[in-house]
Amino acid sequence: MKVELISYTPDAINLIANAARSTHSEEFTTSWDNCSSEDFIRWLIKQKHLGVLEHCVFTFNVEQVSKTLTHQLVRHRIASYLQQSDRYVEPYNYVTPVSIENNNLAHELFIQHMHKSYELYRKLCACGIKKEDARFVIPGAYMTHVVVTMNARTLRHFFELRMSPHAQWEIRTLAHRMFNIVHDLYPCMFEDLL
Amino acid sequence: MKVELISYTPDAINLIANAARSTHSEEFTTSWDNCSSEDFIRWLIKQKHLGVLEHCVFTFNVEQVSKTLTHQLVRHRIASYLQQSDRYVEPYNYVTPVSIENNNLAHELFIQHMHKSYELYRKLCACGIKKEDARFVIPGAYMTHVVVTMNARTLRHFFELRMSPHAQWEIRTLAHRMFNIVHDLYPCMFEDLL
Amino acid sequence: MKVELISYTPDAINLIANAARSTHSEEFTTSWDNCSSEDFIRWLIKQKHLGVLEHCVFTFNVEQVSKTLTHQLVRHRIASYLQQSDRYVEPYNYVTPVSIENNNLAHELFIQHMHKSYELYRKLCACGIKKEDARFVIPGAYMTHVVVTMNARTLRHFFELRMSPHAQWEIRTLAHRMFNIVHDLYPCMFEDLL
Amino acid sequence: MKVELISYTPDAINLIANAARSTHSEEFTTSWDNCSSEDFIRWLIKQKHLGVLEHCVFTFNVEQVSKTLTHQLVRHRIASYLQQSDRYVEPYNYVTPVSIENNNLAHELFIQHMHKSYELYRKLCACGIKKEDARFVIPGAYMTHVVVTMNARTLRHFFELRMSPHAQWEIRTLAHRMFNIVHDLYPCMFEDLL
Repeated sequence: MKVELISYTPDAINLIANAARSTHSEEFTTSWDNCSSEDFIRWLIKQKHLGVLEHCVFTFNVEQVSKTLTHQLVRHRIASYLQQSDRYVEPYNYVTPVSIENNNLAHELFIQHMHKSYELYRKLCACGIKKEDARFVIPGAYMTHVVVTMNARTLRHFFELRMSPHAQWEIRTLAHRMFNIVHDLYPCMFEDLL
Repeated sequence: MKVELISYTPDAINLIANAARSTHSEEFTTSWDNCSSEDFIRWLIKQKHLGVLEHCVFTFNVEQVSKTLTHQLVRHRIASYLQQSDRYVEPYNYVTPVSIENNNLAHELFIQHMHKSYELYRKLCACGIKKEDARFVIPGAYMTHVVVTMNARTLRHFFELRMSPHAQWEIRTLAHRMFNIVHDLYPCMFEDLL
Repeated sequence: MKVELISYTPDAINLIANAARSTHSEEFTTSWDNCSSEDFIRWLIKQKHLGVLEHCVFTFNVEQVSKTLTHQLVRHRIASYLQQSDRYVEPYNYVTPVSIENNNLAHELFIQHMHKSYELYRKLCACGIKKEDARFVIPGAYMTHVVVTMNARTLRHFFELRMSPHAQWEIRTLAHRMFNIVHDLYPCMFEDLL
Repeated sequence: MKVELISYTPDAINLIANAARSTHSEEFTTSWDNCSSEDFIRWLIKQKHLGVLEHCVFTFNVEQVSKTLTHQLVRHRIASYLQQSDRYVEPYNYVTPVSIENNNLAHELFIQHMHKSYELYRKLCACGIKKEDARFVIPGAYMTHVVVTMNARTLRHFFELRMSPHAQWEIRTLAHRMFNIVHDLYPCMFEDLL
């Protein structure tokens, strides 16, 4: 799995704090005049004024994840996705679950199956079957590539659901990787989720 | 593919026409007092007042479609989905593309691969691998089941994109099946798309 | 304030329960085979599986509310609105806050102001000013009319925010009126919010 | 009216073009290898691949607009808003429609009414009425302040609707001001709308 932050709202802490200050009443905000933007955002989050976080946006490039993962990911509707279409793109590699990697027999059968699936895909294409139909034989383990844009509010919700121990391991790994990146960048927006 | 309409807004033609009449100015609507609700809705659609159509909602039960299809379907974000999770449910049958069915060699290889994939899934489970990991070997052709709710405005947009000859055949079939059902029910909302 | 339910998903309890049963695994649902649909929905809500509630939709006709209220209401984005446009429709009546009604002096001044505002509106129209500009003199107390469609999940969120004692009184009243209607209809979807 | 762009996706032309290139098939994109990112985006827009534009986001600070305007603005649901709450903030100034400004009698009456409305607001507050109720007397002409975040796809839709000659003049002015700003910044995303 490869997760990179390829774009984000610059200086978002001040952007959000200033926007929130300027659109709220004086009574409400004077108490925050002398505090830092970070502390003001911490307070807004504690008060559940999460709408302010929508003005801070992150774009991630996510590669080497299975189609099984992206099928779950794109269910998060308040977000934007650019996903590699397997209608036209050849399968190129696959994700192996750790539980399978740790089991010699299972692992061997798994690798064989991945290779055979790809061979069959090539054979079908050679028979004149179009890629968009040949891909029906490709297992869910095969990798895809997606670019995701989410705002900080949606991201928090995504983290709450997907960093949970009940989440499926691959999307949980993705959530943790994304969390580490944005938490390093703007800790005050995410630190309470730890 | 099995497509059933399991719920919809009853008497939606009058609901929408009355709501549009009552929230618009007299000047605007007197011209429509003597016309039928159907004709009023036709006129609203021609004027691109599509917002009114959001108040009419349809719920479909969609079975025997591939995961390849549902991965595309759930990209339509202004909609609600209940999808069978393959984290816990066993794969049970698969979709065969017509181009493969029509090619003897391809078809034979395809069927073999589907059976072997399922056998491997069972073997992995027998080795102690959890279903949520064993499913990584299951090809995209395997079937899933989804319940979809869309309003008439979103549906129209879905039809425009997915009934196009450029759309992938399985989702195009689904779009046509859904279109036929809702067009029979409330023709004036959809007939201009023909 | 006049709040009427003008449309809703019929038999939604069974619709939702059956959809949830049919798209989930056997292990998950056998425990619910012998229980009522109502109890199954109560359990789904307790588990925070709120997505199932999106398939149940309600449409309300809301009249005699102030523009001040609708400006807040339409901020709830996962919903559909048909609102009377005051670009073309004349103001016809106004909402009086209870705190003003209970204060003789304030009430008298308030009523005078409402009448003068309407008189000025008529005068401006008589001067050749278009309604869409004349309405700039109309106070926020003047009434408007809106048709709202929300699904049960959005409604629950709306109730949580707007039935709170911190909510502004007019939208709180609306929320309580809507709550009473849907709670009478489908208690199991809303009773935990009491 | 004051319209400032206070944040935007930096280097969005390359961000979008690279994301689109990397998630599409080689066949599809080799034809675009030698062309500029701008031309690639122009081509994507012509093909109606508008989803790519969602990854480019703009935040505007909008001041000195009427509540009449913001009530329309916030109806655009795929966007984020931070709006000054008049529950707590005093009205401070008002917008005068040009048609009224150009009519001596109308203008005089208008100004008087604005002053009287504010005086009454102050009187009601002095009587012990809370701001959230006193504001019911404030006309729609009074100014508010809003921070808006929209992605380039939503913005294009907003421009199509609101730069039309049928749009109400104040929101049309806002749309043109926003258009000029983003068109100067990233012409290839918006120039076809001229």
